[in-house]
Amino acid sequence: MVRLKATVAYDGTRFSGFQVQPGKIRTVQGVIEKALDRLHKGQIISITASGRTDAGVHAHGQVFHFDSPLQIPGENWVRALNTLLPDDVLIKTVTEVAPDFHARYDVIGKEYRYRFLNRPELDIFRRFYTHHVKVHLDINAMKAAAQFMTGEQDFTSFCASNTSVRDKIRTVYKCELVPMDDEWVICVTGNGFLYQMVRIMTGTLLAVGRGKLQPDDVRGILEARDRRASPMTAPPHGLYLWQVKYRDNLM
Amino acid sequence: MVRLKATVAYDGTRFSGFQVQPGKIRTVQGVIEKALDRLHKGQIISITASGRTDAGVHAHGQVFHFDSPLQIPGENWVRALNTLLPDDVLIKTVTEVAPDFHARYDVIGKEYRYRFLNRPELDIFRRFYTHHVKVHLDINAMKAAAQFMTGEQDFTSFCASNTSVRDKIRTVYKCELVPMDDEWVICVTGNGFLYQMVRIMTGTLLAVGRGKLQPDDVRGILEARDRRASPMTAPPHGLYLWQVKYRDNLM
Repeated sequence: MVRLKATVAYDGTRFSGFQVQPGKIRTVQGVIEKALDRLHKGQIISITASGRTDAGVHAHGQVFHFDSPLQIPGENWVRALNTLLPDDVLIKTVTEVAPDFHARYDVIGKEYRYRFLNRPELDIFRRFYTHHVKVHLDINAMKAAAQFMTGEQDFTSFCASNTSVRDKIRTVYKCELVPMDDEWVICVTGNGFLYQMVRIMTGTLLAVGRGKLQPDDVRGILEARDRRASPMTAPPHGLYLWQVKYRDNLM
Repeated sequence: MVRLKATVAYDGTRFSGFQVQPGKIRTVQGVIEKALDRLHKGQIISITASGRTDAGVHAHGQVFHFDSPLQIPGENWVRALNTLLPDDVLIKTVTEVAPDFHARYDVIGKEYRYRFLNRPELDIFRRFYTHHVKVHLDINAMKAAAQFMTGEQDFTSFCASNTSVRDKIRTVYKCELVPMDDEWVICVTGNGFLYQMVRIMTGTLLAVGRGKLQPDDVRGILEARDRRASPMTAPPHGLYLWQVKYRDNLM
């Protein structure tokens, strides 16, 4: 048996999230495992990802691992899997790793990006890929607010309440608004993220941009350690799991 | 009765082209006429567009006209129609025009744009919106070839053979390759275009970029006045009907 680490991009639009669920629901894990089963002539192969993503959320560089008895070079894995996968999932790399490598437990950091387009007119060609905000946003206020979101903090206020995770202390290394073409991108890196944390952070930043909150209200929201202190969750389609960092690669 | 001129953007991905066809086929005209019928409480309203677009081809600024007994300000037309239309069609403007305005006969020019991404890696988030060319293209050769495509010429070699149009002389004002973010865009303006003309022009330019043709081979292809002289047709999803020019607006 060989342990393999794969990097995958997917368009979350037509998926009910990453993780396999009961019932006839289309998930990213489901279509990847189906392709692996076909490559292994019906033998069931399970994959383990760095974490889940919600329905509608995209990935530029999700990572998963799996074990296989097949001896295939990485390049050929990529080609064989992409031939079997639908056009909204793209395997980018497959590499052999140590047998104890674990795609979830070995994560030391992640980067998420949230795209938004701030102008009156919708662009229908990006309607699944960037969040459209019609009203004028105060970007400088959002940048100021973003600074309060970095560092080692208790992010209970930025975690969806339906979670089983107890320890809600995480370190956000970076939370920056970067202009990209005619859009803005919120780039967030950290050592780990709670359920819907980036969408709630983004929802809070957008509320600051709209003038509903002041930048330093973010401090009070975090100190409250209460999900009800931050009622906004940005929609999923602007969010991308950009990359996952392990000890052996640089962010 | 009032004659109204409307500008519309649409994502061609899930349409079998613009024009209504027999059978249960989803067309842009079909969904717009259905929305108009609902606004007119079941009264059948027909629209006339500047021209057709093929399956998968997008529009940034298609134009159509229709007649209505309703007295509604333009802004409200836009809002009412967009409420009834699916998310891949967006009405941008509706304005009252003279009763003899005709969206097809009064056209004095059109602009098409063809987007392509030239790099080894696919971007799945743009797979329906830009043509991906993996192999390196010689952009300078393509620019040189594009110059031979301008002016008043017989474009028989750049017209799909299944057409009933006799006169194949058209004037192309401009055919330019413009960098846009990480893509290239072929911008073509002219007084009129034959069936699949921009896709065949683009297919020919891409053949030059690949080194399969030399830039001045384009002269011979045009002189041949034979569709078989230019065998390549670029795929539809990179193409956008960008804008339609009438006497009263500037291009």
